[in-house]
Order: sequence, then structure tokens, then C-alpha cells
Amino acid sequence: MLSAWLLPEHIADVLPADARRIEELRRRLLDRARGYGFELVMPPLLEHLESLLSGTGRELDLKTFKLVDQLSGRTLGLRADTTPQAARIDAHLLNREGVTRLCYCGPVLHTRPSGLNATREPLQFGAEIFGHGGLEADLEVAELALDCLHAARLSDLTIDLADARVLRGVLAGAPVDASRLQDVVAALSEKDASALEALAVGLPDETRHGLRALLRLYGGDEVLAAARSELPQRSLITAAIEQLEWTARHLRAAFPGLAIGFDLSDMSGYAYYSGLRFAVYGAGSADALARGGRYDEVGAVFGRNRPAVGFSLDLKALADLAPAVGAGRAIRAPWGDDAALRAAVRRLREAGETVIAALPGHEVETQAFECDRELVLLDGQWQLRAC
Amino acid sequence: MLSAWLLPEHIADVLPADARRIEELRRRLLDRARGYGFELVMPPLLEHLESLLSGTGRELDLKTFKLVDQLSGRTLGLRADTTPQAARIDAHLLNREGVTRLCYCGPVLHTRPSGLNATREPLQFGAEIFGHGGLEADLEVAELALDCLHAARLSDLTIDLADARVLRGVLAGAPVDASRLQDVVAALSEKDASALEALAVGLPDETRHGLRALLRLYGGDEVLAAARSELPQRSLITAAIEQLEWTARHLRAAFPGLAIGFDLSDMSGYAYYSGLRFAVYGAGSADALARGGRYDEVGAVFGRNRPAVGFSLDLKALADLAPAVGAGRAIRAPWGDDAALRAAVRRLREAGETVIAALPGHEVETQAFECDRELVLLDGQWQLRAC
Repeated sequence: MLSAWLLPEHIADVLPADARRIEELRRRLLDRARGYGFELVMPPLLEHLESLLSGTGRELDLKTFKLVDQLSGRTLGLRADTTPQAARIDAHLLNREGVTRLCYCGPVLHTRPSGLNATREPLQFGAEIFGHGGLEADLEVAELALDCLHAARLSDLTIDLADARVLRGVLAGAPVDASRLQDVVAALSEKDASALEALAVGLPDETRHGLRALLRLYGGDEVLAAARSELPQRSLITAAIEQLEWTARHLRAAFPGLAIGFDLSDMSGYAYYSGLRFAVYGAGSADALARGGRYDEVGAVFGRNRPAVGFSLDLKALADLAPAVGAGRAIRAPWGDDAALRAAVRRLREAGETVIAALPGHEVETQAFECDRELVLLDGQWQLRAC
Repeated sequence: MLSAWLLPEHIADVLPADARRIEELRRRLLDRARGYGFELVMPPLLEHLESLLSGTGRELDLKTFKLVDQLSGRTLGLRADTTPQAARIDAHLLNREGVTRLCYCGPVLHTRPSGLNATREPLQFGAEIFGHGGLEADLEVAELALDCLHAARLSDLTIDLADARVLRGVLAGAPVDASRLQDVVAALSEKDASALEALAVGLPDETRHGLRALLRLYGGDEVLAAARSELPQRSLITAAIEQLEWTARHLRAAFPGLAIGFDLSDMSGYAYYSGLRFAVYGAGSADALARGGRYDEVGAVFGRNRPAVGFSLDLKALADLAPAVGAGRAIRAPWGDDAALRAAVRRLREAGETVIAALPGHEVETQAFECDRELVLLDGQWQLRAC
């Protein structure tokens, strides 16, 4: 039974030092979201597969663990992403007319890791606004995402803006089925010019030129000007470029030090995005720390087509980059039957102190907590003394 | 697609009002455990099945969802109980010589619900002490469990004490295989005298008398005296009765209003308990709110036989009984481009306030939060005003 304690690949225990960091971040981010008026929800880990995957695309399907429900014989999925669940809750359970802001924080499971060092069990934190189609909601969500990363004490952030309508506008009217679309998205995200040329064979000239242009349309502010001249003049594309400009201007005003980039061909992440999208990177992090955007169509399968925009991040990945958190100070107390001792320990704990009782025979062990005081009997009174 | 939003049986979304309660309890209980010096760990939801189920018995096996790992082809289990994971972490990852106190809080999944109204996705909170075989650790764990229930503002608590060694002592030397043992445990927990008689056929007289006596050995302090005279004089049983007495005396001193009962045949819950056990009930709750006890043998399969004692509870069930928590006060702010407005909103949020921006067109919507103040421009300054 040598292997009894080996965990599956890309699955790990979180030990105390990291767990402290994650828990501290968790509270801070939930409080931050609450500060914007987001209400906490806790969707289940398990759902009927068709509910979990409605309108979300093949990538999420492949990432989703499936199992059979003994109670019903139906196939269940373990959530790989909480966003569609929040959309379901908004559409069906809350069923409000106006704006609804929801946030959540819980594990998701992936059949395959997203990258070489990625966990298959991220702790997903996210926030979503339902019921407002205007850019103000997109901006609020991006601001909250940036606020959350600042709350994790990360600096030197870069936000990359994109818009799902740009590629859709370029491909509009061209005969591109779902499978070819997926290959186009892959070629664009890998900036693979020759693969893209091969895929564009037979497409209208304007589309081919547009795809070729998209390959180069990433960088700073100059990208938007270039997009205006190089991409087809279609309303989807024009609207997207205007909105990217508006959003960048407002983000710059709110976060003066923030680096803002554009990558008009970026379609990475899940397929449900329908409009503006963003990804936030930290200094030296190759993977995005947070991703978000507009996904107006997801709620439709639940019978209620509400505008929707949100973001999410993996708290485990974030905690890896955030500064360490010490175990904190503690008080060492002897173990004993004495009622006065027990009352003193109780009072200190009520006051928020950590009091570690030295169990008999373990009086001299080192503690994970830094015991800087001890409870001692002096002049018939239990008192604190530095140690 | 009418069923797209129907959840599986015994699976539910947690909506904002309940999620607030759960989150508040979660923080309070984790802080309480920290006050005793328990360190937080976060074991994964997914493990290799043989690691997850080592030494834990058939009931846990039946409750565990299984699936196949695409990366390795091996069978994985979704944890149905976090306690054995904590034992694995203590044995293998921390590998400390002295006392280790660990706590955790996360979802577990059950293939079948534990009761008519039970969820299949409890949010398990628990705390475990490893490395101390003495009763002081059992007492500390029971005290923390009671403290946690008090922190959830539950009163009128009853703790039922039991000991896994009593039944083991009664059956010592009798030819009872695992399957018959399971039936005996079931008959005892249902107080089913005729089933028990049938199962006892052919067992030694002393064992049969002991089993019959166990059926009646539940109630108050008189139970221990009765046990001394009615059960076989075996060291396992004598030690258990003495320790039950010691523990009850100390719990009574620490929690003067606490009702203490004994149920010497109680073997409900998972099969890994090896010594003292306890279950805490609230007023009017048929199911135990918290269960715990000693399980010294679980760590052995991980190659390190450490004394272990702990308890766990379901935060969702606890939150159902705890008082409601309001959404809290909030400030309504207009949406606008004005830098001074945005700065004012930011400052208020930094100070811990909830500030809800009324997105354009949604100015008059009701909010889940109680907006008792609004941010208004008065004399050229953004100021708070009651509303």
C-alpha cells in the first residue's frame, strides 16, 4: 500500500501555510465584492449534465467530470465553472426584474489541467452582474476584478481587452462551421499564420484579409486605430472597437498605474463570451490571474435571456503570488483541571486570542503558532507573561 | 428543455439569505478553531479511491461517488468525509512528532442522502487532534464542538456520550464476522430487541446477556452504574465506563447548562471510531448537529499509527437552525463619470461600506441590501445623506 497517500496528478493538499493565505484572500475578496453590493450564492458541485453544460461549448464539456446518479440513473456533472450556475440562479430562482449582482467562492473540478502547472481543483471566486446590457456593468466587473487583485497585494497589473464580436464580425456571412471556427480560434490564439491561411482557403477575400489582420492586432492603443482601417466596416466590429475605447478610457481614469493592452483575436477561455472580454496579468505571470467578460446568451437556455457580465479567478493561483501570512501569535497555557485556569483560557479565546493548551506530556513541543506569551499562576492568579 | 434548471434530488442551490448565514458561521467557526490552535488545511475533493477509503468501512464506501481519471485510468473517489484526509495529511505531509491540531471546512458529496431531508452536499467543518492518546484531547475536541454550536447561537444542547469499546468488549471472543457485526450494530441503533435476539443465537451466554443489556443502556448518569453491574467485567468495558465518567464530569464543569446523556450501544456514523464518541443535539433537532470521537486506527494505513480524535458538523444544517443574518446596510450612489464621485465611492468601499452604484436605467430598483444612505452632490461635494 505504498501509494495510499499519493494524490492524482494535478491534485494537491493545501497545507497550513498556504491554507492561511487562501482563507485570508477568500474573506478579503468576498468582502470586496460585498462592498460593491454583490450577494453571495453557493451553487452545488453536482448538477444534471444538461443543465450544467447548456450553451457553454465543447471546452467546458471536455473539462467536466461525469458520473451516474444512483438515485435517478441520470448523468451528473461536477461543475468545471460556476458562471453558468450563477446565470441559472439569476434566471430561475431569483427571477428579479432589475439588476442582480451575485458572487461565489468554491471549488471547481477539471478532468484535465489547463496548463503544465495548473491544478485540476481550482478554488473559483467570481462575481456576475445580470440585467444590465450597458458597458457600465462591464466596467464595474473589470474594476472589481482589479480591486480584488489589489486586495491580494498584487501590483504591476496588465489588463488585456478583447471583444468576442470582432472575430464574429470578421467571419460574418462566411461559411464557417463550429469545428472550423474552433480551429480558427486556436490558430489565432497561437498566432499561427500558416495554419490560419490554410483555414481561410475558400473564404471571401474580405474575411481572409480580416483574419490576417487579426493576427497582428495586439498591443497598445495603436491597435484600435489599426483595427478601424484594417478590419471590415461592419457594425459588430465598429461597436466593439468603440466600446473597447470607452472601457480603456474609464479604466485608465480609475487605475492610473494600470497597463492596458488589446488583443483583438483573443478568444481563450470558455466559449460563452458574447461581447467585451478582459484578462488581467500580474508581473511575471504567464497565465491570466482573472478573466471575465460579457456572456449575454447563457441565461437563454434557462428560459430567460438576461444581459450578463462577470469575471472569475482561481484563489489558489492568486495565493501562490500573494505575500505569506504568518500563523499569528498565540498564548501557551498549561493543561489542568483548575476551574480558574479554564475560565481564564475561555476568556482569552472569547477575546480573539489563540490559546494553545499543552496536553499532558507535550509541554515542550514547538508549535506552528508563535507562542509569545504564556498563562501562568502568579500570586494565586492566572496571568499572562511574555515568553 | 423544461428540466434544464431542475437540480438532482437532495441537491440544492444556496441562495443569498442562507449563503450569508453559512458564510458568517464559517468564519466564526474557523476563528473559534484557530482560538484553540487548530491549523487550517484544505484536502482535495478528488483522491485515488484506495487512499480515500483506507480503513474507513463499508458505509463510507457506499456513500462515495466514483469516477475514472482520464489522466491515469485509475478510479477516483469524491470525498464523502474529510476526517480520513486530515489523518493522511497528519501522517504523511506534516509528519510531526508532537501534537498536531488540524481543522478544515469544505464540501463533501454523498451518493445517497443520510436522511429524508438531508443534503447530498454537506459543507463539512471539522477539527482533529493527532498525537495525543489521553482523554484531554477527547475533552478538548468535545469542548470545541460545543463552543462552535454556541458560536452559532444554539442553546439547549444535549451531548450524548458513547464508546466504541463497549460493544467491542461485549463481543470480545465471540464468533461474529464483519457482516453479522454490521447487523448487530443496526439492531442496536434501532433498539430492535427481536432482531438482536435472532442475531445473538449461538453466541456465548455472557455475550447474549451483554447485548440484551446494551439495548437498555441509554439515559442519564444511572446508565454508567447499570453498565458496571450488567455488562461483562472486561478491561475494554471498564476503561470505557471510567473514561465516560471522567469526560462527563469535565464537560459538566465547563458547560454548566449542558444536558449529558449516555447511549452505550450507539455506533451510528462512520465505522472508524475506536474509543470515546459523542453526538451533540439541539432542541428539536432529530439528527445530531455534530459528531465526533476517537479513531486511533485510521492513520495506520498511511504507515503511521497516531492517536487521533476529532469532530465534524454540516454547516448547511447548522445554518438552517441559526438566526437569520440581514443583508446589511448599504449606500446608494448614482452612476457617473465624475472623478470626484468615483473617488468618494472608492473611499467608502475601502472603509468597509457597501456602495451600490445605480446603473443607468436602474435608478429606482429595490436592492437586496437595505440602502439607508445615499451619496449626493451637495454644494459641489459628494456627501452622504440618510434616505
